[in-house]
Amino acid sequence: MKYNQSMKQEEQLRTLEELRQAYEGYKQQKLSLDMSRGKPCTEQLELSMGLLECNDNYMDQGIDVRNYGVLPGIPSARRLFASVLQVSSEEQVLVGGNSSLSLMYYLVDLGWRKGYPESPRPWSQEEKVKFLCPVPGYDRHFAITEDFGIEMIPIPLLEDGPDMEQVERMVQEDSSIKGIWCVPVYSNPDGRVYSEDMTLRLAKMQAAAPDFKIIWDNAYCVHHLSDTQHATPSIVEACADAGHPNRAFALTSTSKVTFPGAGVAAVASSAENIRYLIARMNPMTISYDKMNQMRHVAYLKDMDGIREHMKKHREILWPKFQCVLNILKEELAAFEEDAHWTNPEGGYFISLFLMDGCAKRTVQLCAEAGVTLTPAGAAFPYGNDPKDSHIRIAPSYPSLQELETATKLLCLCAKIAMMEKIAG
Amino acid sequence: MKYNQSMKQEEQLRTLEELRQAYEGYKQQKLSLDMSRGKPCTEQLELSMGLLECNDNYMDQGIDVRNYGVLPGIPSARRLFASVLQVSSEEQVLVGGNSSLSLMYYLVDLGWRKGYPESPRPWSQEEKVKFLCPVPGYDRHFAITEDFGIEMIPIPLLEDGPDMEQVERMVQEDSSIKGIWCVPVYSNPDGRVYSEDMTLRLAKMQAAAPDFKIIWDNAYCVHHLSDTQHATPSIVEACADAGHPNRAFALTSTSKVTFPGAGVAAVASSAENIRYLIARMNPMTISYDKMNQMRHVAYLKDMDGIREHMKKHREILWPKFQCVLNILKEELAAFEEDAHWTNPEGGYFISLFLMDGCAKRTVQLCAEAGVTLTPAGAAFPYGNDPKDSHIRIAPSYPSLQELETATKLLCLCAKIAMMEKIAG
Repeated sequence: MKYNQSMKQEEQLRTLEELRQAYEGYKQQKLSLDMSRGKPCTEQLELSMGLLECNDNYMDQGIDVRNYGVLPGIPSARRLFASVLQVSSEEQVLVGGNSSLSLMYYLVDLGWRKGYPESPRPWSQEEKVKFLCPVPGYDRHFAITEDFGIEMIPIPLLEDGPDMEQVERMVQEDSSIKGIWCVPVYSNPDGRVYSEDMTLRLAKMQAAAPDFKIIWDNAYCVHHLSDTQHATPSIVEACADAGHPNRAFALTSTSKVTFPGAGVAAVASSAENIRYLIARMNPMTISYDKMNQMRHVAYLKDMDGIREHMKKHREILWPKFQCVLNILKEELAAFEEDAHWTNPEGGYFISLFLMDGCAKRTVQLCAEAGVTLTPAGAAFPYGNDPKDSHIRIAPSYPSLQELETATKLLCLCAKIAMMEKIAG
Repeated sequence: MKYNQSMKQEEQLRTLEELRQAYEGYKQQKLSLDMSRGKPCTEQLELSMGLLECNDNYMDQGIDVRNYGVLPGIPSARRLFASVLQVSSEEQVLVGGNSSLSLMYYLVDLGWRKGYPESPRPWSQEEKVKFLCPVPGYDRHFAITEDFGIEMIPIPLLEDGPDMEQVERMVQEDSSIKGIWCVPVYSNPDGRVYSEDMTLRLAKMQAAAPDFKIIWDNAYCVHHLSDTQHATPSIVEACADAGHPNRAFALTSTSKVTFPGAGVAAVASSAENIRYLIARMNPMTISYDKMNQMRHVAYLKDMDGIREHMKKHREILWPKFQCVLNILKEELAAFEEDAHWTNPEGGYFISLFLMDGCAKRTVQLCAEAGVTLTPAGAAFPYGNDPKDSHIRIAPSYPSLQELETATKLLCLCAKIAMMEKIAG
């Protein structure tokens, strides 16, 4: 049976009534479940407790990492993140504190207040500054650009990356476009992986702004959920090969490898860009936490060590993704014309797309029954999903049992919202 | 015997010749010693290794501190720093990452880019922004204000605080003065302690700028070197009592309590200011490293715990200060009209004041003989010591033996520089 507009009015209303009764049943359970953020569960946190035992050695190439100094990060950590971020030399890496978000914030702040070496002037002195935002995207990226008053232009995210025809045209024509936010591997929230072609086009395209920057947030680059370890070409190297060596900043962190509150973040780019960053950061801090960098190197060791460690995360996460995907399939099959979702092979999210105009109502119904979702629209600049159709599902934090309940409720709420629409 | 201008020319030249011969002797030793920064020595770093064993509990009032969130810092750490920073409520504290410098940088950045609630407009939109800088002062404070293009006005630091008559007059008259840098307890580098009177006057004075801020860098508030535990009244409370509740931000860190590269920093102010900070920081980061905060609370416990711990630092540091002070006394007694120095009862530095025009030459002579000092002038805005008389001595890092050699060489170089001046 399909719930759709071909149903008789009477049938529609009866179905809606049945759905609402089921909803009242959920309400009486007084649930309190959270699927709003990509937050690792406690079992995942336990995976990394061994890191805290890595206290034998705090000397790194003659540097006592407990003391002041060494703003670029300790050599061994720079080498480790050079591998993760696909650059050849540790000189192309700065290892920071516990937050890649704050490094990205700093990159925008730096453009804003000082500009980059190629900038005609600081961005704050431009009449207008714009960033391209592939959508659906990461709400915290958009919060940064919004905080600086940078105009955000949504760009459709296709299966293999942003709509590059739009991107190329706009970036070539408009010198006020200073950057683009990218989550190239297992994008937040769709779980898309940028293809080689899309990656190279981003590196090669002509930009009207000499200081156009790609902020390449590779947060999920080692967060595989299938046997295929998806990856893109190195954006930093691709930019160098294309004659735009200072175009891209690639970032990642161990927030979802070790501890979300106490991981290590890093940024990679051309050696020139990294030198520029270090020089500009100098008045701001003497160094980041090098002891935590050292523990991470001792614990994770190298790319192989990271891959082994990430398998344990996958064992915990994949059943949760499966649970959500199975329920979506069972419950929403009848809405196949109006509801579809992504089947990510990595990362932290599933995108659910409902009939236009139904996302906000669904999130509201869930909230009223005790299940918190990311606010509808959050994956779009200014929180504005023009179709009001997208919902981001974050399966990592709840237990399997909670997840089952929450996802069933979500499907029920989605059906109510869509039936309300259909029944007018 | 006194070396001074009453010596006969012949005698002066002979003395200078003797000094230069001694200097050549030092040069042949090929020394490589560093007294440039306030950097704890390895023995001090060893004092806190027990902190790394504090891994039993990562729950704080129901919060799993390993996970995302809780930007203001964990409750127990906020309470600990409320004691250290002399405020009554944890709501008046934000606990940050490993660097109080980066918090201070952020305070200036926030004023610059957004302004404070009382600001008529962001500082970046003012025609002129100025900060008062008690001198000698901390070079890294000056580097922050310089980075923002804020004009720095030097204010003499007297024995009991900044020259408050100048400060009061200027702040009352000039609305472009938006702030003052203060190191109130064991000032860097003079080791002065602001008196109660000076502290209260800073809180009470009329300011032409409604958003005038005191950045109260209490870096050395628990770093006593004598039995007297010097302190000022609480600047935050004094400002509240004087009807200027949002005027002061008090800061400190455990950089010189536990680990310089991996301590915990905090800022205290009115609850309103802290709420404002948290709201404004929200796009920048999800949280600081709460696991490190938790380890610090478990290890240091409370003010008594900190005091006990700091006694161990004093046992290592005081002999080093004594060594420097004794050598200065022995070697420079004959120059008592032209050379004097501070006798700090806490902190990390000794200020040495030489005959005008002799500081740069002394630092240069030291460098050529292998002893690195803080560049002459560094304790003044723009590196400009108008008298060229001040040298900052940092006794903490070298061993006692190295310190003895380095200080004797420093005195020798100072004598050469002064004799050169005298002999014309």
